[in-house]
Amino acid sequence: MAKNLTTRSQDYSKWYNELVIQADLAENSGVKGCMVIKPYGYAIWEKMQAELDRMFKETGHQNAYFPLFIPKSYFSKEASHVDGFAKECAVVTHYRLRNAEDGSGVEVDPNAKLEEELIVRPTSETIIWDTYRKWIQSYRDLPLLINQWANVVRWEMRTRLFLRTAEFLWQEGHTAHATKAEAIVEAEQMMNIYAEFVESHMAVPVVKGLKTESERFAGALETYCIEALMQDGKALQAGTSHFLGQNFAKAFDVKFTDKEGKQDHVWATSWGVSTRLMGALIMTHSDDNGLVLPPKLAPDQVVIIPIYRNEEQLAAASEVANKLTAELRAKGIRVKFDNRDTHKPGWKFNEYELKGVPVRIAIGPKDVEKGTVEVARRDTLTKEFMKTEEATDNIVALMDEIQNNLFKKAIDFRAEKTTVVATYDKFKEVLASKGGFISAHWDGTIETEEQIKKETKATIRCIPLDDDNAPGSCMVTGKPSVRKVLFAKAY
Amino acid sequence: MAKNLTTRSQDYSKWYNELVIQADLAENSGVKGCMVIKPYGYAIWEKMQAELDRMFKETGHQNAYFPLFIPKSYFSKEASHVDGFAKECAVVTHYRLRNAEDGSGVEVDPNAKLEEELIVRPTSETIIWDTYRKWIQSYRDLPLLINQWANVVRWEMRTRLFLRTAEFLWQEGHTAHATKAEAIVEAEQMMNIYAEFVESHMAVPVVKGLKTESERFAGALETYCIEALMQDGKALQAGTSHFLGQNFAKAFDVKFTDKEGKQDHVWATSWGVSTRLMGALIMTHSDDNGLVLPPKLAPDQVVIIPIYRNEEQLAAASEVANKLTAELRAKGIRVKFDNRDTHKPGWKFNEYELKGVPVRIAIGPKDVEKGTVEVARRDTLTKEFMKTEEATDNIVALMDEIQNNLFKKAIDFRAEKTTVVATYDKFKEVLASKGGFISAHWDGTIETEEQIKKETKATIRCIPLDDDNAPGSCMVTGKPSVRKVLFAKAY
Repeated sequence: MAKNLTTRSQDYSKWYNELVIQADLAENSGVKGCMVIKPYGYAIWEKMQAELDRMFKETGHQNAYFPLFIPKSYFSKEASHVDGFAKECAVVTHYRLRNAEDGSGVEVDPNAKLEEELIVRPTSETIIWDTYRKWIQSYRDLPLLINQWANVVRWEMRTRLFLRTAEFLWQEGHTAHATKAEAIVEAEQMMNIYAEFVESHMAVPVVKGLKTESERFAGALETYCIEALMQDGKALQAGTSHFLGQNFAKAFDVKFTDKEGKQDHVWATSWGVSTRLMGALIMTHSDDNGLVLPPKLAPDQVVIIPIYRNEEQLAAASEVANKLTAELRAKGIRVKFDNRDTHKPGWKFNEYELKGVPVRIAIGPKDVEKGTVEVARRDTLTKEFMKTEEATDNIVALMDEIQNNLFKKAIDFRAEKTTVVATYDKFKEVLASKGGFISAHWDGTIETEEQIKKETKATIRCIPLDDDNAPGSCMVTGKPSVRKVLFAKAY
Repeated sequence: MAKNLTTRSQDYSKWYNELVIQADLAENSGVKGCMVIKPYGYAIWEKMQAELDRMFKETGHQNAYFPLFIPKSYFSKEASHVDGFAKECAVVTHYRLRNAEDGSGVEVDPNAKLEEELIVRPTSETIIWDTYRKWIQSYRDLPLLINQWANVVRWEMRTRLFLRTAEFLWQEGHTAHATKAEAIVEAEQMMNIYAEFVESHMAVPVVKGLKTESERFAGALETYCIEALMQDGKALQAGTSHFLGQNFAKAFDVKFTDKEGKQDHVWATSWGVSTRLMGALIMTHSDDNGLVLPPKLAPDQVVIIPIYRNEEQLAAASEVANKLTAELRAKGIRVKFDNRDTHKPGWKFNEYELKGVPVRIAIGPKDVEKGTVEVARRDTLTKEFMKTEEATDNIVALMDEIQNNLFKKAIDFRAEKTTVVATYDKFKEVLASKGGFISAHWDGTIETEEQIKKETKATIRCIPLDDDNAPGSCMVTGKPSVRKVLFAKAY
């Protein structure tokens, strides 16, 4: 177990916080609630970005960039959006500083007050739809499929690295369509792309579903989501895709002329994932020894460490290492050969274990002699000796094996932590004892949802799309329920 | 000439503004001074980013992300930095809005005033050096080579798309080194990387040089820069790289222990290029017909347009086009086959000319019959027929030819527009008649520099590094000058 790392069973929350810091992923900054994403953490985020960006473009989306600031009045234009979003925001009121007369530094220049305050974007629907009005006139301009990679700010009192920070990085897609059906197809497509990415690259299984009315995005008619389960039995919303109907088109007067010359408001979607995904990645796979990364997102997939007592042994190990490195790189594997003489092998072993590098290869004098290398897997913590000439092929295969094993482990964990309950008593008991996802009937009312939340702190994570849709009766009120929904305590 | 596009000779400034809008690169937003970068413009920026990012990583730099906000007090820590940067800034004073009592919308909640105001970063030296204090203890932690891709805000009263906007996108590198010599090598290396990128990818020739003291970055001991010349004879600073000495290390108390156990402050550099490069790209190559893009940065390098009167002719042209598209793509060329039936060929020709696509291929019934295609070059506006089976190889070669031709044209233009003068009268005459770069002796004093700027609006763009370093006497004061410097009016 890693030195100084609290174990998950001791304190899961503390384990997470320590791990993020110790694995050099991120840290708190001098600005309350804002994090610094360190190079190692950012390298993982870049891999996520690259793959998502590829998937977005493959499905016809283009990137663009819209202003960081949104005039205050824009928020008032869409009634439900303003309640959901224009509250805990960073507000720019002035545009100049001046030297303080007492020489104490700089102060806000009272003469440089903005006529209208600017809000640092918490999400960009309003500024984007204000722009779309100019871009959309005819059916020829549709569909408009745009994505933006950006930083956003939502003032948060209680923050946690990656999971909830005042500023975070994300992408937000904003699309406009000629018909309601097309917009719904788009919203569903993006939920599916998110699910595919999270499962195939992050190796994190997700449940696809719909949010209940009270959990919907402010301004949406329907919110699609993907929900993941963390090792402490709490759920984490990993991505959302919203069908916005004509709400924003009406609020910002965005109309198009169809082929018959008739005018109508366009139909909209928006969808996003954020650096929160880093939290999901960390919490799903990592263990008491540190981070565990799926090969597809690991900045270094393989690290090679020479073990030696003298220059001659180092030279021999290096020869094997360099050859192996070249072979693996030719196969597209990201390899690091750590031959630094400032750190001992034991220190390096710990370091790469803490940082979750999927495969560690050690090459000592005996290995050189025997023509073998020692290969250690981070996911299973197992070691084996391989013939050097077979190592490349074996390690290429190992990448898939580790990726699949992590996913399978997470799937099994989730299955074990998903419980179907019929009564509210059983619900409370399961929630208190094992946590996880609880599938139960609910009468569909906001009142009952609120009552459950108040009494148990569990919320409806989603109405699963792949449910059997069998009707039943609400575990709380006994009233009719059209299908079961998924409850959990959540991040 | 493009419809409705002002010509360069009529009004260069107006031509530029119209071109940016008409070619769908960017537009003004509802937020004063902030632009919207449209998909076509952003696609070019993404290509710039990708290549620069590759070059940074190849030279050992890693990406990270630091907060958008900087506490006001941080700016006061480095004396010269505060004067240069903490003035025209967006200031966040509150963190919450509330519903106005009169129901008119939302208003700033006076109870949510920040204890210390936050500045939206105009550049990140202060917040980054505040962080480096925690990251750097020993010589083992050095060099620290970090880059950040981010948005920054500098309040500007007079803005122009890409050239000067309140918010812009950029990258900022911030490095820390054990020795002064290493830091200087880094600052020079980054200037060289910028020059290489701008010349080889943007096909824009640059002069490498040093800024004079009065033009230096606030807090730098030396500012390296690359200066380009636009078609109207005005210079544009395309990138800067700063040797910061120990100024920020001292201001933020960043020390390291060397191998001998001695403590010292670290040495620093910072360097950046921004979306301003888009302005340089547009202004260097484009003409009265619209944008001209170098192949390396063109989102579409080749566009194929079918010409037909009936379905049969379209099918025949499409067959040729699809084959050609596949062949070109296999060679790594970005090809678009525009077979939309909503627009006529003539409209498409204009559109792609306006958007600067390097090569346009037209395929009509006669071409199909003869086994030829018509290939038009955007840079020379020339057309030629090619045998279809030779088209792929020819077009691959054409990519390099166009890239080189654009660079050569710009080099020739700059040579023609660079004048060496000996007297101040001649200086004024050249500046008024042909503009461009003027190489002249200057006595090295801020006073003379100021006088020239006041009287002629020309500034010293740089002290060129590849100058012959021949001494002489100042064109204004007659005092001794160690070498000639480069003057110009500038963007």
